[in-house]
Amino acid sequence: MKRTLAIDFGGTGTKLGIVNERGELEHKVSFPTQTSPEPDAWMAAVEQHLAALDPDRASWPARYAGLGVGVPGFVEFERGLILVLPNVAGWNGIPLAARLEDRLGLPTYVDNDVNMMALAECTYGAGRLLQDAVFLTLGTGVGGGLLLNGRLYRGAASMAGEIGHMTVDRLGEKTPFGRGELERHIGNRALVAYCVERLRQGAVSIIPDLVGGRLEAIDPIVIEKAALQGDALGRAVYEYLAEVLAAALASIAYLLQPQAFVIGGGVAKSGALLFDPLRLRLRDHLHPIFYERLEIRPAELGNDAGLVGAATLALKRGHA
Amino acid sequence: MKRTLAIDFGGTGTKLGIVNERGELEHKVSFPTQTSPEPDAWMAAVEQHLAALDPDRASWPARYAGLGVGVPGFVEFERGLILVLPNVAGWNGIPLAARLEDRLGLPTYVDNDVNMMALAECTYGAGRLLQDAVFLTLGTGVGGGLLLNGRLYRGAASMAGEIGHMTVDRLGEKTPFGRGELERHIGNRALVAYCVERLRQGAVSIIPDLVGGRLEAIDPIVIEKAALQGDALGRAVYEYLAEVLAAALASIAYLLQPQAFVIGGGVAKSGALLFDPLRLRLRDHLHPIFYERLEIRPAELGNDAGLVGAATLALKRGHA
Repeated sequence: MKRTLAIDFGGTGTKLGIVNERGELEHKVSFPTQTSPEPDAWMAAVEQHLAALDPDRASWPARYAGLGVGVPGFVEFERGLILVLPNVAGWNGIPLAARLEDRLGLPTYVDNDVNMMALAECTYGAGRLLQDAVFLTLGTGVGGGLLLNGRLYRGAASMAGEIGHMTVDRLGEKTPFGRGELERHIGNRALVAYCVERLRQGAVSIIPDLVGGRLEAIDPIVIEKAALQGDALGRAVYEYLAEVLAAALASIAYLLQPQAFVIGGGVAKSGALLFDPLRLRLRDHLHPIFYERLEIRPAELGNDAGLVGAATLALKRGHA
Repeated sequence: MKRTLAIDFGGTGTKLGIVNERGELEHKVSFPTQTSPEPDAWMAAVEQHLAALDPDRASWPARYAGLGVGVPGFVEFERGLILVLPNVAGWNGIPLAARLEDRLGLPTYVDNDVNMMALAECTYGAGRLLQDAVFLTLGTGVGGGLLLNGRLYRGAASMAGEIGHMTVDRLGEKTPFGRGELERHIGNRALVAYCVERLRQGAVSIIPDLVGGRLEAIDPIVIEKAALQGDALGRAVYEYLAEVLAAALASIAYLLQPQAFVIGGGVAKSGALLFDPLRLRLRDHLHPIFYERLEIRPAELGNDAGLVGAATLALKRGHA
């Protein structure tokens, strides 16, 4: 059975793994990206950790189909060239695929990390049987990947799927990526800020007790915990998230009419807390002729989807 | 040279024509849709007008590659089945392709009218050399068609491209298709309503003089005329149109990263009046990495694009 090496380059951690062609992650290691964030130091750390995973380097080309890498930013996919990583400095214009091929001697494919998650889900997870689907991750960032006509759709310069930068408030705050962006409304930091703002306005909630009165310690986990106990503010945060997200998903549904939205990432793990109000809000935003032909599904593969997707890209030799 | 028969079924008028494979409209007739809006009466009128265009019916199958039909609504493309025409009653569930094939003896292809415009533009017009482009028509309705990877993209149930129903104000007016829809903001009626509202608020403008004081006579032509003469309110209407449209186009650009937006329809004929502020607003809404890779182009084919596109669909035997 074929295996590949896979890297999931995250803003906080870099994960490395060996994945087989059933999409099973057989071995995994990770290192904190911040200890070696510059390209040369990062590649040296990658080389060292891969060598620890599998010391017999001479036999890698015979045993591995290749190396797949997911990165948090904009990539020219055909050339394996990183254009910009918005949250990691020093990576503009780095030809990562070529540099890693030189170092490691394996065919290397580099793509956006959310595309990798989408590829994993549509090969091994919630999108296995779909032809047209939109994949989202909800977390610190809000990202997207598109499966159209059975293949990843990358757009004219391989940067499509940037759902987090879509405008949900056209007169909203000006940011480097636009105005009133989705991510600025429902990224983790925005949800926490919404919660804190409501508390400052006098909302009654168990959330302050859960963090010992330290409002700066509020995070999505605490909000989920409160909501699961029936706390009104906790639930209001999910209602707000559903309301804003539904507006963006309705626009996507009218534009692309996918069979399904597949939603993963931290906040999506809350299950019915998110999915129930989201379905209600989306029904409010769509004509029945569209709503009835649309599914909303949780992602299936969890935190390692990015690593599995990167491996899948290498297994498919970039044809995805 | 091959020829096809083509029909552009509009809410007000139905156009019929003969188109050659260079995309040239050789003959054209039309009738007002309202005189025979029901399916049987409409098909009888179509048959009669096509027979007037070319009386030698016995030779049609030998001389025409087929018949293409664009309709203003939702179609199951594979089956040539009309699901709903939002502005023409009595057409739900009509298998139009099969019914016309029975009557006329020609292979018949039915699709959404804006898809037909998009197909015409990308075969013979502003999209000839494009692989990934988004086509818009601005008029009474706001419609869209998508060219992705060099082909029309129709979505999971052939209803994609409904740009006019995208949400631009998520807390806006509830309508059958959603909330705060783009078309309700920048369709012709909305632009006129915006103008009248500003006049009622006391805006100083030559527009009331242009309509002899009858505000109910204001239409987009009058607004354009005023704007071309430098009227502040006339220009403000285009600024407003540009501001709202840019928010929707920015969302589409982040989602799909097309090479170009190709914009046609009545208001788009105003040229720089629309395109100059639209480019400024879009630059405000997009990161340079996206804006610099994006073009905004006027459509090239004018009012007959729908007819030419319907013919193109038949020439391509539905493979578009």
